[in-house]
Amino acid sequence: MHKAPSASSLGPGGLDLSQAFFKPIQNTAPPSPTKRHTKIAVVGVGNVGMAIAQTILTQDLADELALIDAKPDKLRGEMLDLQHAAAFLPRTKISASVDYALAAGSDLCIVTAGARQIPGESRLNLLQRNVALFRAIVPALARHAPESILLIVSNPVDVLTYVAWKLSGFPSNRVVGSGTNLDSSRFRFLIADHLDVNAQDVQAYIVGEHGDSSVALWSSISVGGVPVLSFLEKQQIAYEKKTLEEIHKEVVDCAYEVISLKGYTSWAIGYSVANLARALLRDQRSIHPVSVLARGFFGIEGGDVFLSLPAQLGRGGVLGVTNVHLTEEEAARLRDSARTILEVQGQLDLGI
Amino acid sequence: MHKAPSASSLGPGGLDLSQAFFKPIQNTAPPSPTKRHTKIAVVGVGNVGMAIAQTILTQDLADELALIDAKPDKLRGEMLDLQHAAAFLPRTKISASVDYALAAGSDLCIVTAGARQIPGESRLNLLQRNVALFRAIVPALARHAPESILLIVSNPVDVLTYVAWKLSGFPSNRVVGSGTNLDSSRFRFLIADHLDVNAQDVQAYIVGEHGDSSVALWSSISVGGVPVLSFLEKQQIAYEKKTLEEIHKEVVDCAYEVISLKGYTSWAIGYSVANLARALLRDQRSIHPVSVLARGFFGIEGGDVFLSLPAQLGRGGVLGVTNVHLTEEEAARLRDSARTILEVQGQLDLGI
Amino acid sequence: MHKAPSASSLGPGGLDLSQAFFKPIQNTAPPSPTKRHTKIAVVGVGNVGMAIAQTILTQDLADELALIDAKPDKLRGEMLDLQHAAAFLPRTKISASVDYALAAGSDLCIVTAGARQIPGESRLNLLQRNVALFRAIVPALARHAPESILLIVSNPVDVLTYVAWKLSGFPSNRVVGSGTNLDSSRFRFLIADHLDVNAQDVQAYIVGEHGDSSVALWSSISVGGVPVLSFLEKQQIAYEKKTLEEIHKEVVDCAYEVISLKGYTSWAIGYSVANLARALLRDQRSIHPVSVLARGFFGIEGGDVFLSLPAQLGRGGVLGVTNVHLTEEEAARLRDSARTILEVQGQLDLGI
Amino acid sequence: MHKAPSASSLGPGGLDLSQAFFKPIQNTAPPSPTKRHTKIAVVGVGNVGMAIAQTILTQDLADELALIDAKPDKLRGEMLDLQHAAAFLPRTKISASVDYALAAGSDLCIVTAGARQIPGESRLNLLQRNVALFRAIVPALARHAPESILLIVSNPVDVLTYVAWKLSGFPSNRVVGSGTNLDSSRFRFLIADHLDVNAQDVQAYIVGEHGDSSVALWSSISVGGVPVLSFLEKQQIAYEKKTLEEIHKEVVDCAYEVISLKGYTSWAIGYSVANLARALLRDQRSIHPVSVLARGFFGIEGGDVFLSLPAQLGRGGVLGVTNVHLTEEEAARLRDSARTILEVQGQLDLGI
Repeated sequence: MHKAPSASSLGPGGLDLSQAFFKPIQNTAPPSPTKRHTKIAVVGVGNVGMAIAQTILTQDLADELALIDAKPDKLRGEMLDLQHAAAFLPRTKISASVDYALAAGSDLCIVTAGARQIPGESRLNLLQRNVALFRAIVPALARHAPESILLIVSNPVDVLTYVAWKLSGFPSNRVVGSGTNLDSSRFRFLIADHLDVNAQDVQAYIVGEHGDSSVALWSSISVGGVPVLSFLEKQQIAYEKKTLEEIHKEVVDCAYEVISLKGYTSWAIGYSVANLARALLRDQRSIHPVSVLARGFFGIEGGDVFLSLPAQLGRGGVLGVTNVHLTEEEAARLRDSARTILEVQGQLDLGI
Repeated sequence: MHKAPSASSLGPGGLDLSQAFFKPIQNTAPPSPTKRHTKIAVVGVGNVGMAIAQTILTQDLADELALIDAKPDKLRGEMLDLQHAAAFLPRTKISASVDYALAAGSDLCIVTAGARQIPGESRLNLLQRNVALFRAIVPALARHAPESILLIVSNPVDVLTYVAWKLSGFPSNRVVGSGTNLDSSRFRFLIADHLDVNAQDVQAYIVGEHGDSSVALWSSISVGGVPVLSFLEKQQIAYEKKTLEEIHKEVVDCAYEVISLKGYTSWAIGYSVANLARALLRDQRSIHPVSVLARGFFGIEGGDVFLSLPAQLGRGGVLGVTNVHLTEEEAARLRDSARTILEVQGQLDLGI
Repeated sequence: MHKAPSASSLGPGGLDLSQAFFKPIQNTAPPSPTKRHTKIAVVGVGNVGMAIAQTILTQDLADELALIDAKPDKLRGEMLDLQHAAAFLPRTKISASVDYALAAGSDLCIVTAGARQIPGESRLNLLQRNVALFRAIVPALARHAPESILLIVSNPVDVLTYVAWKLSGFPSNRVVGSGTNLDSSRFRFLIADHLDVNAQDVQAYIVGEHGDSSVALWSSISVGGVPVLSFLEKQQIAYEKKTLEEIHKEVVDCAYEVISLKGYTSWAIGYSVANLARALLRDQRSIHPVSVLARGFFGIEGGDVFLSLPAQLGRGGVLGVTNVHLTEEEAARLRDSARTILEVQGQLDLGI
Repeated sequence: MHKAPSASSLGPGGLDLSQAFFKPIQNTAPPSPTKRHTKIAVVGVGNVGMAIAQTILTQDLADELALIDAKPDKLRGEMLDLQHAAAFLPRTKISASVDYALAAGSDLCIVTAGARQIPGESRLNLLQRNVALFRAIVPALARHAPESILLIVSNPVDVLTYVAWKLSGFPSNRVVGSGTNLDSSRFRFLIADHLDVNAQDVQAYIVGEHGDSSVALWSSISVGGVPVLSFLEKQQIAYEKKTLEEIHKEVVDCAYEVISLKGYTSWAIGYSVANLARALLRDQRSIHPVSVLARGFFGIEGGDVFLSLPAQLGRGGVLGVTNVHLTEEEAARLRDSARTILEVQGQLDLGI
């Protein structure tokens, strides 16, 4: 299944166009094996994986896009559906396989696969099943694409990014989780929508654990270069902490809202992950709130734990973490999250 | 639902940022009402409609994107999911409503809504139900967006484009069906894949009725400017008509294949329709095989019928049809399709 | 000269392809006259004007690009040079004329024309000659494109934007000068280069008078959402005001440096103005430091004066000015600039 | 000069932001040396070289852009002018040096440098001076970027591409000349302009020697998939060979026309070469008329000679030549060009 339908009907009957159509020039040599194009592997072709794959394709971020999933029919259907758009897009090689060998030579492996909760199943049990899934995925990716960057999207993203790091044996700068990158985008949208400005003019971070316990960095909010908190103070505009917390609550809630309305989220996470892929592969050295090895930051100790922090991303993966100032309360909430996650991690059996 | 969650939590408590954040300059005047941005309405937010909407958004083809559907929950979920990506995209206003008034001022209305076949239902009955649906959609669009171009994607596309034309009262150049634009892309992909060339270097048209009765124009195939049929003749390469028909068959079959594998098609039709939207709205004057009023072409007579022909598209809609040469057999097959469609149309009750 | 070489050689001898190649469909109607595409006029095809025109073309910001200049040869040469790239770009109509009537229907008119200093000429004399030039340009643009936005790039940009405003009779929201948009980009680049981050992650404004008297807003600098000044304070990093002023001095100097090295500046101003064109025409509602009617802001009184302030730009032109906090010293420097400019303006004869 | 102004003013006085601003995460490892980004070197920063560099930058084709020229002032001025636009573009590292070592690691080296004709100088003498220039450039590029593709733009392009091939010692698939890629674009524009269609819908090749002796392939012309010659025959439209030759003459003349009008050509060659760069580096496998080793094609014998033929380009350079059908007259003209060029080459002293 590595290739599109081989158009084999062209072959028999003496019509081998490809042989006849091009002729080689003289004195050529094959390109050196170190010459490589950009290859992205996406593991899991559900709604999230395909929104990511399609956005990467539209934004022309890769020369080769490899889809991997355990379901061969769905997989081949998605591959063909993307391939059929070839005439409308710059050329990208699109392949698909149930075999992780397809990831060979990838610069970036994006993992979206995840187990679904069985009614009545405990969170820990679900997580342990996800670990089992990652044991099938991550070592295989690490073996076939040993120089790649791993970008984990599956939930719970912070724990699973840690699991991927341990299972891959990769240095920590090459394992990153999509974390609160999307939460931060939602935060920026809500502020921009209220002010009727372009969301790209709004800076605002949500960090920490992806989900309900995430931490909004109020002091990081600026709009068009105007720091909002100090603006409010200088304008002597009254506001209450409660009001700001409500905005944050809206960010947390809106993921659940989309799921309750359409059954899943896809487009926004697709754009979010394509945005990270560009930063990583095109060496943008730009800053994104993503899940990185957070030990040692803001007093987080006691073990290896991944949490979202404003990290600089480039071709080398995670290049560093912004030395952002946190209030003592914000730092304390990060440490609380770290502790909770470490407890969960302590109960997991990674089998290594 | 016209607006995103209004972030109303920012309002109470005295924090009205939007008032405080910007101050007007002096001596201003509101923009003239004739100054307009580009607005696209998408009717139907199923898999096809959303793949179209998302591709239009990624390719930055509109300043405003209006989603219309009868299901308010699904609709709001899809709107929010797109809006949440605001920080990753150029600013596009995204709105959603069950009310067709939202289409007001649209430059282009794309209709993807369609009834699903009930097991055991006759094709004609299904079609009549689609006509009923179009009677709810098209006159409302024509009333609210009287200057727009209608682009019909719903199937059977040729008949429904005719229905939309009649129900809208629009001139024929402003009603077009997606027709065989996607079939032609699949055709180009299959040829390009076999030759390992860029599909954008392959010219090849499938015209006529979208679906099983479509007509492949063999003489139109050229690769990198080399007409393939005469190339084969000059190279004295043996080939059989049967072989070429097999490629065409593969094009027809691969839509069914994708549906059987993943349950529906979405990505390729999304790119295909975004491609048409760009040609129309950015006045590209480029040539696409789309469903247009075909009466009078290639001996098609006996009534108004829409079939795909290589048409030049621009800001005025359909600018003309390429005077392509058809073999007598090809023309005869077009006329056959026209006759069949006219018979079906004769049985429909448009209620006008 | 409105059209490319008319390829008239195709005409005689009976070969009128355009008539034969396309055939109209039936029941058509011409598009309504209110249906318009996006048109940009660039006045002045020197190094700056052409860098702007070419960047607008590459970034596909307009459906029609009209070049206007007093030198017909240079003008036609530049038009042909752009037209010859048609096969490599989305279709844009490119026209050129010495007649301002070509600007008819423009959404945006960009003025780059300016008189060159004669050795020994006083600044005021040069300015008065530029005023004479603007008297030939601006009323003609206002007459032929009465709904357009005027974007002034010619120097001294602040005075000439005022002159254009007066000569056009336009409301102030439709007259804007490129101002310190480029100075701010240079500022952001210098900071980003030092930190090895993406310049798009750096927020930093230079406002006020374009050139030597511009004002750097230190409190507006943030990198990846981290306000730099308060970061330095919290990290207790010693710095001196003198150091920061040196960065600002480098920004001011680097325009002179480029001119001394290559003779003129072109590329950066081209990107800068294309960036403004996008914000205006695609209704981005984004914030840019550009020259706007500044009376009433930060205590600027005594007359109508244009200075760069962080303004929100959209399809309506200048939508508002960000209520940024300035230190008393910064505001005083703005008022000084305003006073100096008002004195100069008092000496000008606009002939109205 | 490898780096932008080092913003050294930020350094002294205790303000070392870059150290303080980011902190590393734990357990990292440097990226493997085989991980590379895309790097393009442009040799010669005159009008042509800079139009190429700027278009490559706008189209985001490289992660690193290296400018090389013998004139340090002009070079630094151009580098700074591009760098100052950083805030408006995706991040690209831009460097400049008089030292060819800057080309190290380039994937593509584009050579635009050339000697100017001295009044009264013979063509052969000028060519010999260009050979001397290439002896300074090409071996140095080959040494520092031994895996790169060489793309020659300097004129006379066919002979100089041969010279570059010999001096580099590269296999022939990694040495290509811009050839008639631009001539073909002009041809397509002239046809498209006459028909009022999108130039991207016009296929048409000019091949052979770049310049006055180029060969228009009439049988290759198709518009929207309609082969024009056979269309004319089938429509029984009278035309004369003389008419078609006049179009070709217009293509040849319009380069001279642009030079006489504006003094040089720049924009179109910039887009043309950026188009080739994309095809090569993004492995587009698309077909372009470019100067390749033509020995053995169409009866060209007697020595190694470069002429433009429709070649497939990809990451490996020249992948093959389209087996296009030429009339005997067209083939004879190619052979004539080949003979003339071989005679000239026989008189050159490459010093190897």
